Amino acid sequence: MSQAPARVTAVDTHDIRFPTSRELDGSDAMNPDPDYSAAYVVLRTDAADGHEGHGFVFTIGRGNDVQVAAIDALRDHVLGRDVEELCADPGSLLRDLIGDSQLRWLGPEKGVMHMAIGAVVNAVWDLAARRAGKPLWQLLADAEPEWLVGQIDFRYIADVLTPQQALDLLRRGRRGAAERRARLLQRGYPAYTTSPGWLGYDDDKLGRLAAQAVADGFRQIKLKVGADLDDDIRRCRVARAVVGPGIRLAVDANQRWNVDEAIHWTRALAEFGPYWIEEPTSPDDVLGHAAIRRAVAPVKVATGEHVHNRIMFKQLLQADALDIVQIDAARVAGVNENLAILLLAARFGVPVCPHAGGVGLCELVQHLSMFDYLAVSGTTEDRVIEYVDHLHEHFVTPVVIRGGHYTAPTTPGFSAALRPESLARYTFPGGTYWAADPDTQKGQAA
Amino acid sequence: MSQAPARVTAVDTHDIRFPTSRELDGSDAMNPDPDYSAAYVVLRTDAADGHEGHGFVFTIGRGNDVQVAAIDALRDHVLGRDVEELCADPGSLLRDLIGDSQLRWLGPEKGVMHMAIGAVVNAVWDLAARRAGKPLWQLLADAEPEWLVGQIDFRYIADVLTPQQALDLLRRGRRGAAERRARLLQRGYPAYTTSPGWLGYDDDKLGRLAAQAVADGFRQIKLKVGADLDDDIRRCRVARAVVGPGIRLAVDANQRWNVDEAIHWTRALAEFGPYWIEEPTSPDDVLGHAAIRRAVAPVKVATGEHVHNRIMFKQLLQADALDIVQIDAARVAGVNENLAILLLAARFGVPVCPHAGGVGLCELVQHLSMFDYLAVSGTTEDRVIEYVDHLHEHFVTPVVIRGGHYTAPTTPGFSAALRPESLARYTFPGGTYWAADPDTQKGQAA
Repeated sequence: MSQAPARVTAVDTHDIRFPTSRELDGSDAMNPDPDYSAAYVVLRTDAADGHEGHGFVFTIGRGNDVQVAAIDALRDHVLGRDVEELCADPGSLLRDLIGDSQLRWLGPEKGVMHMAIGAVVNAVWDLAARRAGKPLWQLLADAEPEWLVGQIDFRYIADVLTPQQALDLLRRGRRGAAERRARLLQRGYPAYTTSPGWLGYDDDKLGRLAAQAVADGFRQIKLKVGADLDDDIRRCRVARAVVGPGIRLAVDANQRWNVDEAIHWTRALAEFGPYWIEEPTSPDDVLGHAAIRRAVAPVKVATGEHVHNRIMFKQLLQADALDIVQIDAARVAGVNENLAILLLAARFGVPVCPHAGGVGLCELVQHLSMFDYLAVSGTTEDRVIEYVDHLHEHFVTPVVIRGGHYTAPTTPGFSAALRPESLARYTFPGGTYWAADPDTQKGQAA
Repeated sequence: MSQAPARVTAVDTHDIRFPTSRELDGSDAMNPDPDYSAAYVVLRTDAADGHEGHGFVFTIGRGNDVQVAAIDALRDHVLGRDVEELCADPGSLLRDLIGDSQLRWLGPEKGVMHMAIGAVVNAVWDLAARRAGKPLWQLLADAEPEWLVGQIDFRYIADVLTPQQALDLLRRGRRGAAERRARLLQRGYPAYTTSPGWLGYDDDKLGRLAAQAVADGFRQIKLKVGADLDDDIRRCRVARAVVGPGIRLAVDANQRWNVDEAIHWTRALAEFGPYWIEEPTSPDDVLGHAAIRRAVAPVKVATGEHVHNRIMFKQLLQADALDIVQIDAARVAGVNENLAILLLAARFGVPVCPHAGGVGLCELVQHLSMFDYLAVSGTTEDRVIEYVDHLHEHFVTPVVIRGGHYTAPTTPGFSAALRPESLARYTFPGGTYWAADPDTQKGQAA
């Protein structure tokens, strides 16, 4: 009896919501009361190894059901796929998903449908890394440059990054990787923390957490700003007084401002020596970011967590609109599109400092930065991964932070799997937490 | 007994799909087999007048259910609203929908969630115009400039268009409106037709339909291009030979190209005197459009049907990236955001030639162009509304084309209502058409 190839047999989706709004964790000038959530997808196969692939979109509450519906709409593209072929070439699935002309109308390559594609593609990478017995960062760093180039969609970016240029960057990037890998495993990858700086925290809590962050080994912290200028001046003063002059202090406006406001407000905070101003205005406004950057230097401009695809990052780089590229692991079309963005950043010599926090974004994005360090930029200078100390307990292999550094994960996969107990408790609205919540049972949104 | 104010009592949604792929109507280089669809919403109230408000998102098939789910996610913002207040200020609802911080994460202001907002907001305008007893173009043209300015969200565009500048444009724009209104009611608004140029049609059908278009009074036709250059050269030659030198011939690549390809391909078609090249590349690529425009002049560059919000249009105008602004009635956040886009175009002196076709886009967008003629740009010179002769029979008040012109609608409302028989037949998958379709019943997508 000949052995049939293993197939994808199920694409299971879950609407998972954590009641974070009740503690004001994650509060900022645009997002006063987020309920950190995940539209979560699990690929199951009939392979004898029993491995699954896990992926998700991070959302902040309402609309997580719409995001789940978008993942469901991709199911037919995934079911029945040959697992070996899929894992040998995740880009083949990406091409089919991006290339579904009917679904494309709903973007194209942006918003709910694009994030859904990202979740499914990331689930394939998780499966591929598990099957390979490697953490994803290692799978990527071990891969041949030619194969990595084949994983990238160069449509709409080839005017700035050709496949040949990508190949050259990857060939150059991997020189000395073995040495860097030893260093990575020993020291980890530098992190900064946003945990002290949520807008909903009072000055005492801010000061206490900022001091703790420095004691814990972080060399950079971040404060949310943008709701009230006097408050921001006071909070920056508190933070700077606590951390001293040697610690980088980033500020984050979460898109709160118009261009002129961004310039005015950032200059008003300049006396506290902010290292970067993050999301000063709409993520869509390439030319606006460029104008802000010219006006607020030497304060750096950072953006990216809401930049919806490689085409927008291309232009932000072309227009000299930012100093820091903030990739997000669950906003764009998965690992493949982030490969393109890492290479675009490398081509322009702009450091990548990923957005993280939320649900599981730290778990995912550490792999991409570690790959960048080993095989693209080759450095951690001026590079830090955001760290927020929430919700890690729900993951099977949560991030490990030591001395202000992300420890390189060694478990095979993309660190994306939620614990079964957490799924059972926080599934919305039927999980045990929400079922016991009177507001939910009255039909209120989370 | 005091009279309680009328409230919105229901937000009904419908997944409507027409099997257009079976005739290759609507086929182009990116969309070979669309099933033109509508995620359709009806607002009902307990007002004694019995008026409803109708709105929709146009999609091309798969994913229409996701779009419906996105409209459903907005329901709680609309239910129970005071009808009189809502219709007196549709912008108040828009602010609440755009301002829902949890839903905002799914965009922001782009893709599925943003289009859902547009459908709901447009349904409110339909209701408002019905209650006012006016077609929407007239309601807008009769409105005070101050009130119209209050309907616009200036966030992220105020660096280029301030409320005061908008007010000045509207005050100047309405001068002579009475005269133009008489002319509009007499002659209508100029149209061009895409009906001859679908990529799936053979040369005979193309030639026959192009000749018919000229005989019908159209002064511009459009051909889809971008799949194969030799085919495009041949098809442009056929069309030009049929229509002669005096008719404008636009070509439309539907985002098929990279920047370099767009330049090469457009130059290769230059001998046929194309009037504009539409969607030469990604709608997100502001700087790419600017580079293409510089390289292909005097061929004009047109885009907009997939440009997802006012912030992107702002930049396309700032960067001198286009000659023609193609608004779409169902891509952005409804009438309000299109007001902003019309005013941005007026500020830069760029003509607006709306995208239409699909399901009901002609019905909607005629109102916006007629308003622009009466109260913003004050001219129809170099301005034409796209016309495609499909699916109008499903609307209660379909567009009326005479001598290549849209006749000004006189029925109150936004012309958005589908006929009850069409809803019953084309609801997916339960309507009578789809229920009788063996593929649908096997669980296939439309």
